[in-house]
Amino acid sequence: MLRGMTDPKTPFTTWMPQALAEARAAQARGEVPVGAVIISPDGQIVARAGNETRAQHDPSTHAEILAIRRACQAVGSQRLEGHALWVTLEPCPMCAACIAMARIETLYYGASDPKSGGLESGPRLYTHPNLHHRPQVYNGIAADQCAELLRDFFQSRRIS
Amino acid sequence: MLRGMTDPKTPFTTWMPQALAEARAAQARGEVPVGAVIISPDGQIVARAGNETRAQHDPSTHAEILAIRRACQAVGSQRLEGHALWVTLEPCPMCAACIAMARIETLYYGASDPKSGGLESGPRLYTHPNLHHRPQVYNGIAADQCAELLRDFFQSRRIS
Repeated sequence: MLRGMTDPKTPFTTWMPQALAEARAAQARGEVPVGAVIISPDGQIVARAGNETRAQHDPSTHAEILAIRRACQAVGSQRLEGHALWVTLEPCPMCAACIAMARIETLYYGASDPKSGGLESGPRLYTHPNLHHRPQVYNGIAADQCAELLRDFFQSRRIS
Repeated sequence: MLRGMTDPKTPFTTWMPQALAEARAAQARGEVPVGAVIISPDGQIVARAGNETRAQHDPSTHAEILAIRRACQAVGSQRLEGHALWVTLEPCPMCAACIAMARIETLYYGASDPKSGGLESGPRLYTHPNLHHRPQVYNGIAADQCAELLRDFFQSRRIS
């Protein structure tokens, strides 16, 4: 099912371990443990980020937005054609729209987010024609690990 | 219909002229002419912004996101309870979701955006329960002036 796997010349590489490392780093800073990395067309990490909403007092600083912002700085463009974004959690509507506007080619994510996600439930953002670009989407990648991080984080906050 | 008008003790004040000034300043910088201001509960401007996507190479730097970011810095919180956001154009899904996450109390906007808007058409973001907060929304304020700026901008770009 995964795109690269259909072509034996381009073996599929998962970057979810790197996104998970960003999620764990966010957790260590007291942020909601979500992490993201952006991969260039030639297979290099061009940006990585975890959530920073608390540190920056800024609801827009989700991991995906920060990673896109950093990748755009690195590339010198507001468009990231041919790039892939890996993120541990289903993007919220804000991030899903930004991913589309940045022209990200492929979105890979881990856990589903039925409460706040923007793709599988609620507004199902990529089903609407006024999103003028839509990435290819692959979900459920290392979903258990991604979800476990979030579950542990919220459980520990309820106890403490 | 407008909230303040129902209470004679709190006369309604429009801040669209200030948002339009930000839109014109954006246009002068070669950006899409959209402008926004955020008003505190005591009726002061706490942030103003126009689009900066070209200057910053960043698809997330719409006027609304920048205004929210600046207001959050000014207030020292990622929540803007009791604040109002005025913007010249119907927010896109990214901005509409960020406005909700920032807990903006009231959203006033000018022109509708049937092509890329996130509220009146397409995903109709505030109709979904997984947006956990929704502002009160008033649209069509100085809509002709707001739309004219955008029309002139795109017409001049097609001619030049």
